[in-house]
Amino acid sequence: MTSSSDTVPDDHYRITYEEVHVHICNAARKIKQDFDPDVILAIAGGGLFPARVLRTFLKRPSRLDPTKLRNVPINVVSLALYEEIANSSAGALGREVLRTQWLDAKAIRGQKEGGAAEEGKGEGLLGKRILIVDEVDDSRTTLQYAYNELLKDVRKEIKSLSPQERAALPPTRFGIFVVNNKLRQKRGVLPIYPEGTSTENEPLDDAQDGDKVGKGCFYWAAETTGDVWIDYPWEQDDIIEHNRLAAVAKKLGVNQPVGVLQAAASASA
Amino acid sequence: MTSSSDTVPDDHYRITYEEVHVHICNAARKIKQDFDPDVILAIAGGGLFPARVLRTFLKRPSRLDPTKLRNVPINVVSLALYEEIANSSAGALGREVLRTQWLDAKAIRGQKEGGAAEEGKGEGLLGKRILIVDEVDDSRTTLQYAYNELLKDVRKEIKSLSPQERAALPPTRFGIFVVNNKLRQKRGVLPIYPEGTSTENEPLDDAQDGDKVGKGCFYWAAETTGDVWIDYPWEQDDIIEHNRLAAVAKKLGVNQPVGVLQAAASASA
Repeated sequence: MTSSSDTVPDDHYRITYEEVHVHICNAARKIKQDFDPDVILAIAGGGLFPARVLRTFLKRPSRLDPTKLRNVPINVVSLALYEEIANSSAGALGREVLRTQWLDAKAIRGQKEGGAAEEGKGEGLLGKRILIVDEVDDSRTTLQYAYNELLKDVRKEIKSLSPQERAALPPTRFGIFVVNNKLRQKRGVLPIYPEGTSTENEPLDDAQDGDKVGKGCFYWAAETTGDVWIDYPWEQDDIIEHNRLAAVAKKLGVNQPVGVLQAAASASA
Repeated sequence: MTSSSDTVPDDHYRITYEEVHVHICNAARKIKQDFDPDVILAIAGGGLFPARVLRTFLKRPSRLDPTKLRNVPINVVSLALYEEIANSSAGALGREVLRTQWLDAKAIRGQKEGGAAEEGKGEGLLGKRILIVDEVDDSRTTLQYAYNELLKDVRKEIKSLSPQERAALPPTRFGIFVVNNKLRQKRGVLPIYPEGTSTENEPLDDAQDGDKVGKGCFYWAAETTGDVWIDYPWEQDDIIEHNRLAAVAKKLGVNQPVGVLQAAASASA
């Protein structure tokens, strides 16, 4: 028996803050097992909330004082699809990405001033395990752009190092984390590693004279959905009504996701 | 009658995602009335969530197509207090701030390539109403640093314009928004305008040959607390337990904030 308040107005998938938080917590266990990022690169605006929550679960012992846990630094780039900017303009045919904020060479190479006290801060991206974070992998256009541009910039900066510096640099590795991956045809392409790839057996490209950069990227989605409209809590005018509708949909078993990422439990072997 | 589960383990003020969201919604009405920012500058990591939610409530009609609402762009800087970086180091005496990500001159001046389609994107900060966003105004050290550095950079870029460009530029104004302001002695200083200041009567400084920059800054805190420890939801390992404890504290009337910002209701005159 359902009352009139037990209906939902559309086929959107509504997710609450607490659900996103718990999903990120679970995904973070797996990301830490597989990758343990040194630095987070959030794509604004969507990646801001996931990056901040993810950081809570990716703390690592300080090198200076291993009894303390340190935050993984967050860098942010802002990207916009042209289609989001001016959908009425004849010139905006939808697939181009605009950088509205990007990292300069200093942020990529790292800042040397300040010395050893800057652990985890201002250290740059070279030789790091870099985790790119966004809210949703929809058409994959933005993610492809972010990954490719970052890869290009990282390679350029590695090339500018001396042969000695380059030889001393650990491999630079890329991972991508999204809250939701939509099962749909993608316009963008990412060289995602097959299942079973780890930082132990990851193929590295050192075509450019010892630059040692991952040939592809790791990839995690906290939750997988069909090709549905997703309503995130941070977009809501009325968060109380949003939560109510999310609960109704869950109770009715409608507009639900198709899968959730879980870390391998230690007892699962 | 209280059961053993109706107690809280400490004197922290616990706030839920939904409460922060609603507070930001209320504060946004006032910010829109008083300031209507052109661009948000989030201070990472704390400002990431507030900035993203605030953006939801600060949409404005598109100049290209007024029937559509456009997002206010978010730029991000990352700052860290030295005391957060290396509390064990003798050289780190706590009051210095380190830029771990900052805006380059291009981001401040704006990118001209791409043309008119880039409405609200890559437009830079000069001649804008700039809203700096962080989670908490605690010692005020970080906010003082962010405001002063930004002011310095904006002035420098305005100075680099031609006299004609400078004359055509609208005033550059600064506002600060935090989710929580703690009532405590501040180490940092901000030139906050007195109550009643608006963009109509704001004092502008044009000492530098017509640069027209606000002499001080607007300031809004969604919620005011005593000098208490605040537990934000995005920092929690266990969000469910956090919400439970927040509800218990509210029921008991303990560890609560002292004030909430409300927009002037239209009926209040």
